[in-house]
Amino acid sequence: MANLFDEMSQSKPSLHTCLSPALLHLYDLSNSVMVIIDVFRATSTIASALHNGARSVIPVDSVPKAIEISKSIDGIAAGERDGMIAEGLQHGNSPLEYTRDFIGGRTLVLTTTNGTRLLQMALDRHADTIISGSFPNLSKVCDYLLASGKSVILGCAGWKDRFNLEDTLFAGAVIDRLEQHVTIHCDSSRMAVDQYRRQQADLIGFAPQLTHYHRLVNRFGLIKDIEFCLTVDAAPVLPVYRDGRLVADVHAADNPFGK
Amino acid sequence: MANLFDEMSQSKPSLHTCLSPALLHLYDLSNSVMVIIDVFRATSTIASALHNGARSVIPVDSVPKAIEISKSIDGIAAGERDGMIAEGLQHGNSPLEYTRDFIGGRTLVLTTTNGTRLLQMALDRHADTIISGSFPNLSKVCDYLLASGKSVILGCAGWKDRFNLEDTLFAGAVIDRLEQHVTIHCDSSRMAVDQYRRQQADLIGFAPQLTHYHRLVNRFGLIKDIEFCLTVDAAPVLPVYRDGRLVADVHAADNPFGK
Repeated sequence: MANLFDEMSQSKPSLHTCLSPALLHLYDLSNSVMVIIDVFRATSTIASALHNGARSVIPVDSVPKAIEISKSIDGIAAGERDGMIAEGLQHGNSPLEYTRDFIGGRTLVLTTTNGTRLLQMALDRHADTIISGSFPNLSKVCDYLLASGKSVILGCAGWKDRFNLEDTLFAGAVIDRLEQHVTIHCDSSRMAVDQYRRQQADLIGFAPQLTHYHRLVNRFGLIKDIEFCLTVDAAPVLPVYRDGRLVADVHAADNPFGK
Repeated sequence: MANLFDEMSQSKPSLHTCLSPALLHLYDLSNSVMVIIDVFRATSTIASALHNGARSVIPVDSVPKAIEISKSIDGIAAGERDGMIAEGLQHGNSPLEYTRDFIGGRTLVLTTTNGTRLLQMALDRHADTIISGSFPNLSKVCDYLLASGKSVILGCAGWKDRFNLEDTLFAGAVIDRLEQHVTIHCDSSRMAVDQYRRQQADLIGFAPQLTHYHRLVNRFGLIKDIEFCLTVDAAPVLPVYRDGRLVADVHAADNPFGK
């Protein structure tokens, strides 16, 4: 094993953290795994739906498209605009809405303000591999990245292109676990892991300091959503983007490094 | 005084931190003071030159323009590209180069990779008031912002649109002093002040963790520059942009709040 690790340390893949979709053009997505991060709430909802047996999640960029596609495949159209269920839809972006009874065996067609938009941008930039990450599937994401051996781009969806702390904290959580296995050359990754290590002991207690917390809790009363979205490994599944949809990767290796 | 502070707290100006020039379009610069921050090294050099008696600093976006303007006014053309003295120029972007003997009474025409570019972007977006900030003139910047009573945009120049920690740390230092007098609604400001408070006791000791430190010190051996750029109030002057040039504001109030 010593030799394997020695070899690895000589050719570690790189890891970068992109703090806003408006900065995505600065990063080379070829030969990399791009992790879409939208902690509140798109990527937590995607993990929840797939963990509860959804066949797939189709991310789309508009409400009419969500309705049209869901009708053609007998799926469930859902989405959010500015934190609320999007006009014209019956289902929103709450991870708790997608129970096994409701979503099992069905396809979710989802449109959100930030997360699905970033995913589309990654596709436009020819990302090699796209997965989605959130605290509920943290370990699955880290295991996949370790096993892949590819360079990593942690893409924070933010809020309408602005930096947010919850996506940064998740990026930091990934870096905290991968640090020994990757080469980090960017200040955004250093900052992210530092912020995570300061708050990891009580993420839910820290949440009231987040701008988005007030948007969700004060205006929409979604405290249960927030708690789920900050619970590590509450929905252990690996969403991988293939042929226009996110599916649970049944081959996702359990942690090859035994962490 | 109690009444004055009560009135102030009811109508505190807002403060936002913009982490990259590529995010500047997200912020409203009208009726605000925009602080250009390029710690390594443009805004530290501007503070150094003006504190040492330069008549003004003219920021320009190209080397030919720097040469042309400096010739016409018997000024000193200077600039940096990728951390080194720009090709075609004799003077660079080192704050230690601009001693009183050299720069006193003269005009510096300066072009840099990040800082002067951000200033031009702020002009293009019709910023109300533009000043430049760095650790060597931290107190002057804070005093001016407190006295102005306007909203504040802390603009980090970064490195070629990427986030960097040294500009973020300076933004955090400003927020640390202004926090009670402004309204903060953005996660980037929360993160910046948190990072600053963790590192403020030994900024120079923290420097080797910065990506840019290695760019400057390992490649160009500029450790003395770094130390100057991280020394609070080493060049106490307030550079204000007026009519195409940065000048020392002789009316800059000494701290009106007695901090």
